[in-house]
Amino acid sequence: MTDQMQRITLASRPTGAPTPENFKLESGPIPEPGEGEVLVRVHYMSLDPYMRGRMDDGPSYAQPVPLGGTMEGGAVGEVLASNAKGFEPGDMVMGPLGWATHAVASGKMLQKLDPTIAPIQTALGVLGMPGFTGWYGLTELGRPQKGETLVVAAATGPVGSMVGQLARLAGLRTVGIAGGTDKCAMATDTFGFDACLDHRAYDSAGDLRAALKEVCPDGIDIYFENVGGKVLEAVMPLMNVGGRIPVCGMISWYNAGGLGAGAGGEKDLLPRTWRMILVNRLSVNGFIISDHWDKLPSFLADVAPKVVSGEIAHIEDVAEGLAAAPEAFIGLLQGRNKGKQLVKLI
Amino acid sequence: MTDQMQRITLASRPTGAPTPENFKLESGPIPEPGEGEVLVRVHYMSLDPYMRGRMDDGPSYAQPVPLGGTMEGGAVGEVLASNAKGFEPGDMVMGPLGWATHAVASGKMLQKLDPTIAPIQTALGVLGMPGFTGWYGLTELGRPQKGETLVVAAATGPVGSMVGQLARLAGLRTVGIAGGTDKCAMATDTFGFDACLDHRAYDSAGDLRAALKEVCPDGIDIYFENVGGKVLEAVMPLMNVGGRIPVCGMISWYNAGGLGAGAGGEKDLLPRTWRMILVNRLSVNGFIISDHWDKLPSFLADVAPKVVSGEIAHIEDVAEGLAAAPEAFIGLLQGRNKGKQLVKLI
Repeated sequence: MTDQMQRITLASRPTGAPTPENFKLESGPIPEPGEGEVLVRVHYMSLDPYMRGRMDDGPSYAQPVPLGGTMEGGAVGEVLASNAKGFEPGDMVMGPLGWATHAVASGKMLQKLDPTIAPIQTALGVLGMPGFTGWYGLTELGRPQKGETLVVAAATGPVGSMVGQLARLAGLRTVGIAGGTDKCAMATDTFGFDACLDHRAYDSAGDLRAALKEVCPDGIDIYFENVGGKVLEAVMPLMNVGGRIPVCGMISWYNAGGLGAGAGGEKDLLPRTWRMILVNRLSVNGFIISDHWDKLPSFLADVAPKVVSGEIAHIEDVAEGLAAAPEAFIGLLQGRNKGKQLVKLI
Repeated sequence: MTDQMQRITLASRPTGAPTPENFKLESGPIPEPGEGEVLVRVHYMSLDPYMRGRMDDGPSYAQPVPLGGTMEGGAVGEVLASNAKGFEPGDMVMGPLGWATHAVASGKMLQKLDPTIAPIQTALGVLGMPGFTGWYGLTELGRPQKGETLVVAAATGPVGSMVGQLARLAGLRTVGIAGGTDKCAMATDTFGFDACLDHRAYDSAGDLRAALKEVCPDGIDIYFENVGGKVLEAVMPLMNVGGRIPVCGMISWYNAGGLGAGAGGEKDLLPRTWRMILVNRLSVNGFIISDHWDKLPSFLADVAPKVVSGEIAHIEDVAEGLAAAPEAFIGLLQGRNKGKQLVKLI
């Protein structure tokens, strides 16, 4: 038993939203680390929307997961054996360990964690890629100015909650959008948003826009884009001259069957959006956080103390056991999670 | 007779493409300049695509022309009488004089021209707003790097030809898009584009994209956006990582009846476009040149000598007489002009 591990593989590529049948739980022997490699026992796995993209084989900014391959993802865990310089058994590490109880990875891909600074799973959320994404996009591309208004969707997620809290600390009016009254309450109560709208309460982009207009009386200066779809459509006409739109994701379009098929709204959306970019001199910047690892130390220096002090709050939604990962991931794409979605393996 | 002037007014707002009936030629007395004002006899009027937007009364970045009001536009001419400090009869000036043989304008709105540097009508084209638009958008937002590839549509127009020539001088591969074989020949022969595609030869964005792919073997780093529509759709998937898209116009959508009604292409265009912005980390920046007058001296210092030396070519398409303006403007929106469209009044 102790030399067996479990992993979740991609059994088939989804059409639209993933279903449990797209995943398969498999068992096998625990691998041996080769030269320069480390064997890690995973404690927490991260589930993130970008993983949906890896399940497709269309063009993207990363290779798709092969059929039968282990689902990819970041995780944290304990080193069991090491043939890599700088890693010893007992070290806590973070890296691309995939959806698995154990993994072998090159030492070069792993980052050692200091468990005395913060619980190690924060390296997957508030102090990891999602938090870093929010911090980088807001500070480098959003260029927040005191007194401005920021809107971000998925406001209670690990990216949105980081963006909202940093913007509030910078003196902006912050308006979140989230799915459901519980999440909206969490956005204002836990994360300090000035207002939060439940997008499920608005059937059309126009209705959502009317509600946004009320809570953004001075218009919108920064729209941190992580969802696309109805929210983007609602926000665009409210953008102020000189507004900034950092684009780090578009979760509402990820399930659209190769993107956009039927889910893109009305025919004239691109012309209208493009016109707003021109008329209001907007700056729209796509970014992929892995291009910017050089800024990670600046991020940690800025944010880790605020997390430890509680000035920046974070919430974790923890599923128990590897077998629970597919359902938790499907729930994440449907917005059922509350806070950063993790899977606890040990 | 000598105290009479003529002007063209907006008789009705167009639905879609303007027709001659939307304009009216009217006569009236030549106005007297008030305190601080100047009376100018117009020599050349400029016709520009942005004027189409002024004919609508929807929200835009400028007030619409009122029904019955004189069509707006830039022009150059000679001062006949002046009550403004710094202007004398005989001075040549440029300013927002409208579609008219004579105009009174505040001295503050006028710029004196030195006719010994270049013919005064160049202040309406290659050395005026269009050339300045191309220069600003390319240098400030396009950030050209030697060896990169640039695509610009309306390649023989005053903006596109400036963009293409400046990019070539900066060491880029330059690919133009224009309407018709004559214009394409002009783009390569007169303006030095490495290649030019006739968009009329391609029925779909996909066909245009395939042709673009052949002439942009290393992808596209800068797409200078002045047309929107099919060209935008063709270009987007060919953009390289880190590409830049300065957005100064979208002429192909200006006639779409309030923008986009039926002319915006397929439903999924916005999701696809947004995805490309993310995947390729594109930087899309709308700009309105009138925000940047402070850079005009830098532009003139950089470009005027190159125009005088012939290093930067320019072509003027001159209609004769005020009455010819509406037809010339309609032709401009249909792409019938060759080079900068002017109307010569004297």
